[in-house]
Amino acid sequence: MKKHYLLTPGPTPVPPGVALREALPVLHHRTSEFSAIYKDVVEGLKYVFQTKNEVYVVASSGTGAMEMAVVNLLSPGDEVIVASCGNFGDRWIKIAEGYGVKVISVSVEWGKVVKPVAIEEALKSNPNVKAVYTTFTETSTGVVNDVKAIGEIVSKTNAVLVVDAISGLCGQEFRTDDWKVDVVVAGSQKGLMLAPGLAFITLSDKAWKAVDVSKISKFYFDIKKYKKSYATNETPFTPPVTLIVALQESIRLIKGRGLESMWHDYKLLAKAARAGMQALGLKLFGEVPCDVVTSACVPLEIGGKIVKTLREKYGVSIAGGQGVLKGKIIRFAHMGYIGKADLLVGFACLEMVLCELAVKIEKGKAVAAAEEELLKD
Amino acid sequence: MKKHYLLTPGPTPVPPGVALREALPVLHHRTSEFSAIYKDVVEGLKYVFQTKNEVYVVASSGTGAMEMAVVNLLSPGDEVIVASCGNFGDRWIKIAEGYGVKVISVSVEWGKVVKPVAIEEALKSNPNVKAVYTTFTETSTGVVNDVKAIGEIVSKTNAVLVVDAISGLCGQEFRTDDWKVDVVVAGSQKGLMLAPGLAFITLSDKAWKAVDVSKISKFYFDIKKYKKSYATNETPFTPPVTLIVALQESIRLIKGRGLESMWHDYKLLAKAARAGMQALGLKLFGEVPCDVVTSACVPLEIGGKIVKTLREKYGVSIAGGQGVLKGKIIRFAHMGYIGKADLLVGFACLEMVLCELAVKIEKGKAVAAAEEELLKD
Repeated sequence: MKKHYLLTPGPTPVPPGVALREALPVLHHRTSEFSAIYKDVVEGLKYVFQTKNEVYVVASSGTGAMEMAVVNLLSPGDEVIVASCGNFGDRWIKIAEGYGVKVISVSVEWGKVVKPVAIEEALKSNPNVKAVYTTFTETSTGVVNDVKAIGEIVSKTNAVLVVDAISGLCGQEFRTDDWKVDVVVAGSQKGLMLAPGLAFITLSDKAWKAVDVSKISKFYFDIKKYKKSYATNETPFTPPVTLIVALQESIRLIKGRGLESMWHDYKLLAKAARAGMQALGLKLFGEVPCDVVTSACVPLEIGGKIVKTLREKYGVSIAGGQGVLKGKIIRFAHMGYIGKADLLVGFACLEMVLCELAVKIEKGKAVAAAEEELLKD
Repeated sequence: MKKHYLLTPGPTPVPPGVALREALPVLHHRTSEFSAIYKDVVEGLKYVFQTKNEVYVVASSGTGAMEMAVVNLLSPGDEVIVASCGNFGDRWIKIAEGYGVKVISVSVEWGKVVKPVAIEEALKSNPNVKAVYTTFTETSTGVVNDVKAIGEIVSKTNAVLVVDAISGLCGQEFRTDDWKVDVVVAGSQKGLMLAPGLAFITLSDKAWKAVDVSKISKFYFDIKKYKKSYATNETPFTPPVTLIVALQESIRLIKGRGLESMWHDYKLLAKAARAGMQALGLKLFGEVPCDVVTSACVPLEIGGKIVKTLREKYGVSIAGGQGVLKGKIIRFAHMGYIGKADLLVGFACLEMVLCELAVKIEKGKAVAAAEEELLKD
């Protein structure tokens, strides 16, 4: 009987019409019926990624696509720059180093955003760098990096720019081709409004040149296999057909709404979420807050309790801090199938939980502040 | 309006109660609710695999779990034996060689079964072999290998035995621990009666010793990460929650029915399928036919047409031959959620298609032969 309200930065809620498609009878993946759906899906993904290049669908978590962006572009001993500003940026370092790649880090403290100028300088000092890895919206802290500026810089060099857009795609303006991003990875369970289980990757012509000389061993994540199968509207290995059939519907919804319109709406939700947090006296966390998740500082002694109480007592799932931020921040998502009313539910319950945890707040104030922003639409 | 009848060796049909669970609202994966489901699932998988060891759930196609069984057990330059008898056995060779592993092949012609004595001899001649890779039911040809005998042989050496049971698990007697199999890999879309998207792997203590000294680079498929997360009923990366929630239901159905009872039923279906093929004058293919798929030889000029016409005209999906067997055989699956009536539908429509393709057959004869076997139950 417990009613759940999912306000976490992935997985996010799935629209009922999308979820129901997961329950349709399984289609065989080597049929004209499935190929037609697959073709429609990958064409739709080009729109979602804002690219003219092919987008490949992989059966894995988002991290699988991140690994693809390392093992297909590099060789052991290669030098890369990683510009990290949080937990997911740090994952690039772990993957790259795990494959014998030398990482030049221009990372910043968690909560800050990566500095395009630092990437520019690192590229000048290290002319052999093969790739620059960074994160679009860093979910662990709630900031957004200036990928457009980074793209401008990296495109003038021989390095390819690889961006983890797992949490930000569909949630905030992102233009693969216009921003000169060579490789973008994403996952199904965030802005694409689908259950977890699919990852995506797209590569520019410049990136394909790196693929040609890559010497890291790979099999399941070998991008060439995916490219070859793509030509016949197939995948190299049995794909998660029910998730792909559902994805067709979520892409249809996204196209119907329009990316610009979605970006506008999440920006509004973000403004409302920030206003709500501040109305509760909670300091916003993050140098440049993104539009898909809002982070706020909480007293260390109640950090974990807020998340736990919200979930157990009211069925509202938000996220706490990860790693060094554990217990120090709360994270409130407004990505995917999360709307104005969901945000207000979240703040109303957060108010009650803070009262229960003996934090002095004025009931209704966060909701009022959020409403005020939402009404400006 | 087209009605589909899925009689392919993966994906297989999904019971409605399992499929509907895929459409339930997405749960967050770091919650006590999901952990409880996950714990139930992995305990159930121990029963399915007939092992006391932990079974890990991976977001990937079955091939991903095969790759895990290579990259976690070996180092570049290691020697392994691969006993292949078909397309999926050959995949072990491709994966191993792709990672710089030296493969000693004791493979046999497609259609034959691997010879335990050949493995025994190869192990004697090559005492440094780290692992033996083979296939339980080889779906590409329709045979079953004597894994029990192979387990007996390999267990007396220092090598670990790795078995691809992707298509055979739940469909035919398979006992991981009793048969001394060290590593077993499986997928969700066959005997487990679920949509594709999940893979599984289990390791014996002997196999874990190999993991400790493995030097192949890996990140997403690093089994140690899965073991670590298992301890807290979690996965290292965001898991396909809807598939796992559905898997809980399919495992409940499997436990309710009982593995022995399922093995009995598929054996009966296999007998009926073989009788049906023979009644049509089609020669059975494969030295030792397995219980999950029945292969029969067809005239080369109509091989592809049978599969295509069955699907397009009657909505019945069966499989044709792969690789060297393309156009030469048809494959009729009786694994997962496929029952007696489905088999009869398949044979009735096959009779009509053969008539349409001007093959001289007696209408109703295959159905009658299959019925006769089914009535012996």
